[in-house]
Amino acid sequence: MARINEHYLKLKAGYLFPEIGRRVRAFAEANPSANIIRLGIGDVTRPLPPVVLKAFHEAVSELGAEKTFMGYGPEQGYDFLIDALIEKAYAPLGVRLKPSEIFISDGSKCDTANILDVFALENRVAIGDPVYPVYNDTNVMLGRSAPPNEPGDSPEIVYMACTEGNGFFPGFPEERVDIVYLCSPNNPTGMAANRRQLKGWVDYALANDAVIFFDAAYEAFITEAGYPHSIYEIEGASRCAVEFRSFSKTAGFTGVRCALTVVPEGVTAKTPSGEAIPLNRLWNRRQTTKFNGVSYPVQRAAAAVYTDEGWRQVKETINYYMGNARVIREGLAAAGYTVHGGVNAPYIWLKTPGGLSSWGFFDKLLTECHVVGTPGSGFGPSGEGYFRLSAFGSHDNVTEAVERIRKNG
Amino acid sequence: MARINEHYLKLKAGYLFPEIGRRVRAFAEANPSANIIRLGIGDVTRPLPPVVLKAFHEAVSELGAEKTFMGYGPEQGYDFLIDALIEKAYAPLGVRLKPSEIFISDGSKCDTANILDVFALENRVAIGDPVYPVYNDTNVMLGRSAPPNEPGDSPEIVYMACTEGNGFFPGFPEERVDIVYLCSPNNPTGMAANRRQLKGWVDYALANDAVIFFDAAYEAFITEAGYPHSIYEIEGASRCAVEFRSFSKTAGFTGVRCALTVVPEGVTAKTPSGEAIPLNRLWNRRQTTKFNGVSYPVQRAAAAVYTDEGWRQVKETINYYMGNARVIREGLAAAGYTVHGGVNAPYIWLKTPGGLSSWGFFDKLLTECHVVGTPGSGFGPSGEGYFRLSAFGSHDNVTEAVERIRKNG
Repeated sequence: MARINEHYLKLKAGYLFPEIGRRVRAFAEANPSANIIRLGIGDVTRPLPPVVLKAFHEAVSELGAEKTFMGYGPEQGYDFLIDALIEKAYAPLGVRLKPSEIFISDGSKCDTANILDVFALENRVAIGDPVYPVYNDTNVMLGRSAPPNEPGDSPEIVYMACTEGNGFFPGFPEERVDIVYLCSPNNPTGMAANRRQLKGWVDYALANDAVIFFDAAYEAFITEAGYPHSIYEIEGASRCAVEFRSFSKTAGFTGVRCALTVVPEGVTAKTPSGEAIPLNRLWNRRQTTKFNGVSYPVQRAAAAVYTDEGWRQVKETINYYMGNARVIREGLAAAGYTVHGGVNAPYIWLKTPGGLSSWGFFDKLLTECHVVGTPGSGFGPSGEGYFRLSAFGSHDNVTEAVERIRKNG
Repeated sequence: MARINEHYLKLKAGYLFPEIGRRVRAFAEANPSANIIRLGIGDVTRPLPPVVLKAFHEAVSELGAEKTFMGYGPEQGYDFLIDALIEKAYAPLGVRLKPSEIFISDGSKCDTANILDVFALENRVAIGDPVYPVYNDTNVMLGRSAPPNEPGDSPEIVYMACTEGNGFFPGFPEERVDIVYLCSPNNPTGMAANRRQLKGWVDYALANDAVIFFDAAYEAFITEAGYPHSIYEIEGASRCAVEFRSFSKTAGFTGVRCALTVVPEGVTAKTPSGEAIPLNRLWNRRQTTKFNGVSYPVQRAAAAVYTDEGWRQVKETINYYMGNARVIREGLAAAGYTVHGGVNAPYIWLKTPGGLSSWGFFDKLLTECHVVGTPGSGFGPSGEGYFRLSAFGSHDNVTEAVERIRKNG
């Protein structure tokens, strides 16, 4: 008798974004004339930059001719992309990586989920609260939880509250943990961690033989100095941290699919007998056995992001979004809202007015302003009473949405 | 102290294809003038058909304009591709599927590995021997094994020998199993299962509450009538079988990356208390939580495969490869080799001559004929003494390789 993985039944009913989609569809069907502005799911809206598009087309054409056809590529990604990342994304930060330390994938969502494959179930895992729900749900799927308690946590996972009190950056939990997820600039709070904050966690990891999963999907949106773009800017991190980066938000690749994971050769975890094993070796085995590499034309398109002209064009789009972020941040602050983030990240994290719950404010905003945002409570219990707005819309839509919220929100 | 998944240490040293690559590179470096013909790894060589290429380009162009830009798509795949598969790939077989039963992914390697996520570790798993190594290794990674015994099996996995004696199709194991992998047309033996053989396993699965993982990656290469292209051509299969298909071999997508998994709503597995849970629900949760969908232009390219003109062009390439298969099969048979497969699959499975081991014949073929094949023992202990040749080369190369083997092999 085949048996299911019963841990799946411990997951809360809906993954956040499908639930938002459901409510928006229901409202749109009941109100077909409503002009709904979507600042909910963090999806980009600007087209691919011309340089990226050109490289994409050229690579597709290569697949149409016998002499240039490409079949299976390396599961870890092509050297042309890995080398571009080493030289253009990391070297300018003072970070030296080897080609064997970078793994190209089809998305950071996959990578932050799949990295758990190479760890034992027994690890004590710490997750920010609020945070990107994938970290929590993928741990629950593996069995790192009991049935959910109110207000929504999984008891065997250690949650680190990120609140106004600690500047939305997690302090060290009381019990020792083995794996810690850090996301900076943070989704959903829009706050970036500074050097001192990251140094604290690197020191913690080194002292406790812990591993840091550093999600830097939004690093390209940092506008202020003093905020590291990579965890490897912190001394010692190359002995304890795995870093995730993505082309999704950086270069408009949410529908194109390309990301990378850095697993430095110095990062280890232990066997039951205490032998230190390089994670790089295990992740390489995982990727070569369970993954077949990223689409060749997609990798060519991604490499074009790191040409000089490509990066100039990509930066232009990022600046466009960060202009939106300023409109939201300043507009809502002027309207009396308490707002965080939006300076080094494309997300604005606002306190719901009048003590409304996150979903209460979601429904109010949807029905009264026809604006879709993301309920903070969907990112963890400490997100209750908060709300995320994304700067990824068009400038006109964002301006209009802020106007509607100021009038009716 | 972070702990590794120690099951990874139980894997045999090299995944098959990297090891082949290593030996070929070493030989090529020592013999730079050797004209090596690669019929080892099952990778396609013909360019993408023009219709597919055109759709690919058009979709890339859409990403370059604001009005047609596409961000995140449905994790399960776009309707335009799912509908094309329902109408053009399945309906002609008499198989009726719902859109919610098809999940688009970036590869069957990923899917056949990831499907294990939704099952409990306790399931007893049966795997053909020889077979695609991913089935075995991904089970070992999860803990379904003890350290390997000679000649290379993992004791907690049930291996079903596929030999000349049983026509290279597995009979039922003595102990009851919960999950069984069937691959037809088979990699590596090149043999397709007939209706009666598949009916036997469907009946077994229904009688034992077991689930069949049916890998049909090579179904497009079936040339004879009487061999099902889908497990759902067998009555009852939609209550017990998950089917994997791929565009990789069918349409030259090994470097493009697109595949699909069918999880009919009627397929269930049980909780510890015996409640039947639809696998479709669990797989949907897995994919929406751990995966972000396939690249939009790739899905457009895949959909073009199932236009009338696309399919005609794809079929032309398949016929080209099957012409190669005939050259290999008939050429080696005429030279006195015992050959199997190559009629309904692009693989020829030959008995090594003179009692040579599989790797012994690999080295002999590489050094004496400069031809790369795949050692049968790499697919499981019952593959020892066999050797796989792939029909995916160019016609000239295949003809030349057969000529060399006839002279020196």
